[in-house]
Amino acid sequence: MSSYTAPIRDMSFVINELAGLDAVTALPGCEEVGAELVEAVLEEAGKLAASVLDPLNHAGDRNGARWTEAGVIAAPGFKDAYWQFVEGGWNGLACPVDYEGQGLPELLGTATHEMWNAANMSFALCPMLTLGAIEAINHYAVDALKDAYLPNMVSGRWTGTMNLTEPQAGSDLAAVRSKAVPDGDAYRITGQKIFITWGDHDMTENVVHLVLARLPDAPPGVKGISLFLVPKFVLDADGAPATRNGVHCVSIEHKLGIHGSPTCVLAFEDAVGYLVGTANKGLAHMFTMMNEARLKVGLQGVAIAERAYQQARWYANDRVQGRTVRDRGEARSPIIGHPDVRRMLLTMKAQTEAMRALAYTTAAQVDIARRHPDEAERRRAQARVDLMIPIVKGWSTETGQDVTSIGIQVHGGMGYVEETGAAQYFRDARITTIYEGTTAIQANDLVGRKLAHDRGSAMQALLADMRATLAELADAPGDDLAAIRAGLAPAVDALAEVTDWVVANHETDPAEVLGAAYNVLMLAGCVCGGWQMARAALAATRKLVAGDDPAFHEAKLLTARFYAEQILPRAGALLTGAKAGARTLMALAPEQF
Amino acid sequence: MSSYTAPIRDMSFVINELAGLDAVTALPGCEEVGAELVEAVLEEAGKLAASVLDPLNHAGDRNGARWTEAGVIAAPGFKDAYWQFVEGGWNGLACPVDYEGQGLPELLGTATHEMWNAANMSFALCPMLTLGAIEAINHYAVDALKDAYLPNMVSGRWTGTMNLTEPQAGSDLAAVRSKAVPDGDAYRITGQKIFITWGDHDMTENVVHLVLARLPDAPPGVKGISLFLVPKFVLDADGAPATRNGVHCVSIEHKLGIHGSPTCVLAFEDAVGYLVGTANKGLAHMFTMMNEARLKVGLQGVAIAERAYQQARWYANDRVQGRTVRDRGEARSPIIGHPDVRRMLLTMKAQTEAMRALAYTTAAQVDIARRHPDEAERRRAQARVDLMIPIVKGWSTETGQDVTSIGIQVHGGMGYVEETGAAQYFRDARITTIYEGTTAIQANDLVGRKLAHDRGSAMQALLADMRATLAELADAPGDDLAAIRAGLAPAVDALAEVTDWVVANHETDPAEVLGAAYNVLMLAGCVCGGWQMARAALAATRKLVAGDDPAFHEAKLLTARFYAEQILPRAGALLTGAKAGARTLMALAPEQF
Repeated sequence: MSSYTAPIRDMSFVINELAGLDAVTALPGCEEVGAELVEAVLEEAGKLAASVLDPLNHAGDRNGARWTEAGVIAAPGFKDAYWQFVEGGWNGLACPVDYEGQGLPELLGTATHEMWNAANMSFALCPMLTLGAIEAINHYAVDALKDAYLPNMVSGRWTGTMNLTEPQAGSDLAAVRSKAVPDGDAYRITGQKIFITWGDHDMTENVVHLVLARLPDAPPGVKGISLFLVPKFVLDADGAPATRNGVHCVSIEHKLGIHGSPTCVLAFEDAVGYLVGTANKGLAHMFTMMNEARLKVGLQGVAIAERAYQQARWYANDRVQGRTVRDRGEARSPIIGHPDVRRMLLTMKAQTEAMRALAYTTAAQVDIARRHPDEAERRRAQARVDLMIPIVKGWSTETGQDVTSIGIQVHGGMGYVEETGAAQYFRDARITTIYEGTTAIQANDLVGRKLAHDRGSAMQALLADMRATLAELADAPGDDLAAIRAGLAPAVDALAEVTDWVVANHETDPAEVLGAAYNVLMLAGCVCGGWQMARAALAATRKLVAGDDPAFHEAKLLTARFYAEQILPRAGALLTGAKAGARTLMALAPEQF
Repeated sequence: MSSYTAPIRDMSFVINELAGLDAVTALPGCEEVGAELVEAVLEEAGKLAASVLDPLNHAGDRNGARWTEAGVIAAPGFKDAYWQFVEGGWNGLACPVDYEGQGLPELLGTATHEMWNAANMSFALCPMLTLGAIEAINHYAVDALKDAYLPNMVSGRWTGTMNLTEPQAGSDLAAVRSKAVPDGDAYRITGQKIFITWGDHDMTENVVHLVLARLPDAPPGVKGISLFLVPKFVLDADGAPATRNGVHCVSIEHKLGIHGSPTCVLAFEDAVGYLVGTANKGLAHMFTMMNEARLKVGLQGVAIAERAYQQARWYANDRVQGRTVRDRGEARSPIIGHPDVRRMLLTMKAQTEAMRALAYTTAAQVDIARRHPDEAERRRAQARVDLMIPIVKGWSTETGQDVTSIGIQVHGGMGYVEETGAAQYFRDARITTIYEGTTAIQANDLVGRKLAHDRGSAMQALLADMRATLAELADAPGDDLAAIRAGLAPAVDALAEVTDWVVANHETDPAEVLGAAYNVLMLAGCVCGGWQMARAALAATRKLVAGDDPAFHEAKLLTARFYAEQILPRAGALLTGAKAGARTLMALAPEQF
């Protein structure tokens, strides 16, 4: 098994050349962030990921979290690692300074989150959920609640959870049944929640649950759901965790992967809870934290792909087998010399780099949307972020899953043996297309709320940016950039065509468009990734002209070309599939399946 | 968790309408096989698969086979099930009558093997390996060995294994180091073999290993490898297992899946063995059994896809969640009403049916190649079989893996929980693209030995058959067949184009072609599958005209249309990828990855 090394050189390239660090550091509140600070943070985060989190990953998979009557026990070593993480100040890196956060840009936080997830996805889920909860509390809770909970959550001394799902209410949250009954200033929450990530554990003194439930007079459906804060321990007058609340973990799931992350069934029985935001607006409030979480789950796709790639690359250099086609002599070579092993590695590398570029550029837009002094600019950035959320989440998790599967394949038989590690990434990755909204939910969000709702205008703005890159490519020299342009141009046309098709058909035949939504999502991701790779190729060419690190930048250029030649042609197939529509889909009766 | 039901109606459709049962039953030795016998065999096999093998599958996964000092203990219940299998006469169904086999067509054997693998892939591996060993012994061993071993192996009273891999010799068998030293009429074998499926167990009295090893005077490389039969127990004068031989299982692997199938490290120490076939020709002999095994592994792709599909279909009908887009009322519906769930189910169904049709039609060609009285016809059929082996193996296992992943996705969060069963199929399937030659090995076989070697003539014959189907479609009525033709025609052109490209470039630039091999393989599979679906659509249309079972045949027609609309467009992308060639692949130095 290889060990994880944070790909700092690649991350810096994306942060500086593609995501636009300059524009982010120019934002109010980011004045002290410079390239040097960024490098220093990445170096330190990389050390923690490699030396503390990564070594626990395989053991966490083997041993898992453990349920006991008294509560869930985190996997061996996780508690110590968590406290190193907290004490290093990593939890609140991109959190508001008002509540003990460091207020650094989301762009930088995104890079560190990639590291945590690549090193140990099960571990990283815990702070990820905490950040989502912080986001919702910070947006919607009254000051007293913020003051009581946020400092301890931002620091990481307490962790947070999202309690949405119930047995009958998965993707369909309208079916939520948990109840909240007023009790003085507070409420009493009763119900059962399932699939609660890090819903209970022994790493921290308190766990802060955000819970969807219905008030007694609530209307049915999604318009009758409210959001409550339910602490594991109710605080005393000094704000210290004191009274055990009526929320208990009754079991944890036996899952395909992320064994180090306890997935809890939580029973709420008359648990003390506090309303967050407006009564009956809970679902909308929850979506605030879900959007944040969706970007981070998309990033998990990047992270697990990077980890699988590192493992496969290591094995391909280490494993000697056969002679390469160009050297049929007696000496055997590392398998990285074989064309198909290279095809697999480059497919992993190209897609990982495309996903990273997309996730980081979106994170930079989050910073602009939050901090830019000009409201029009904030609104423009937010529109881009909203458009990108389902793409980053849906496409990067599907692609990350594919990359981990290729990672096994590079190893041959050794990939199927658990000790190698490749199989764990494949198992861990498989949840990412499901939680925080399945790929279908992302696809419906993209075609419905993101394309049809604004009649394609956010997408048109994105397409205009892509066409600007195509124009740059047209003026640029060299065979590689020409090949990239040849791959990208028809793919951008395909995305434009499918956008028009969605806008034209969504109102008249929503089933037609929903049936095509997955194809539209995958097409959008494929093309957005190709666009970012083209931008990377242009940036790399500039560096090559300047004589800057030729080996690194030549690899960037060729990897972009590989993406254009091997991945972008899929856009045409996805367009054809999308436009075939849903008639064939809907024609069969259930019993004809 | 759903239970397995053998899809006998689908299997009969393929056997009768696509694979050509009539032509098979007209073959010498098959005179007594008629449609009724076929139905009766399928019914009985389906019962065994559903009532005996399927109920052990999940427990076999959970408990697995167990290593002990004294030998491997099969998973609970497997031994009893195995003896029901043996006593039913299932092992020798398609084996030679000379050795207690029933001499039934491979076409029928293929259908039963799909059932064993769908119900319990770990279990089915044991008879699969035995059949491969029977094939090699029957082809190459002297009569005394055949008489001593085949009756007990054909009946299943003893099982067989294939011992190829060593730690340094995986895909590269030239690196085999195990030694064989002459000892009277026999040999003494010493060495270590890894990844030996069902290499040891307690289900039968004897295990018959076929082992690759080198004689003392053997030339280096692949031309110095011989094949030996090494029994776990050496037979006494009466032919009964008597003396424990020097072959022991020193450990079993901890794998991602197929936990019920022990994957053994075998230590051979001075083990008594018998030469099978000609000295130094062992690799060629082994390929005889490997070709047989490759078709059966391809069939595992079909089987595990069918099983995953049945599970997903069951869940999609059972799980109530949300309201469908066409019925926005208050009542919630089973998720099979949602367009994207239908897209997933139809992707599973269409690809499973395409794979099945391809595997079964190839099996019918195996029967013709073995039994047809006309040598030219035998040779024609064998050329088709040789061409199809890498496609059935490579494409069906890659596709089967994809189908099991979609199977998880249909379940949402429940798919990630091991109790549901979907995750097991996903884990079990993952080995199929690796063993019996990885997908890359299949792809190299296709472009090198199968396309370039005969300058594309076997593929040209296949393309001519496809064009005949296109002509039939052109004359056929209806919107569905027109849509199928519109999808198939450019895909067939793409396959023709890539064939010419391989033939033209293989000699001058083998690296270029090897770099494209995976794309060529997947293109060939995608188009062959589409062709079979088009044939199915034509057959279904004939049945619909005759008023025969409209619901069933309408589903066949629409599923074929779905394949043409959603799967066949990939052919264009794969062609573009293939023709992009290997230059980009080979340009990076290992340290640039």
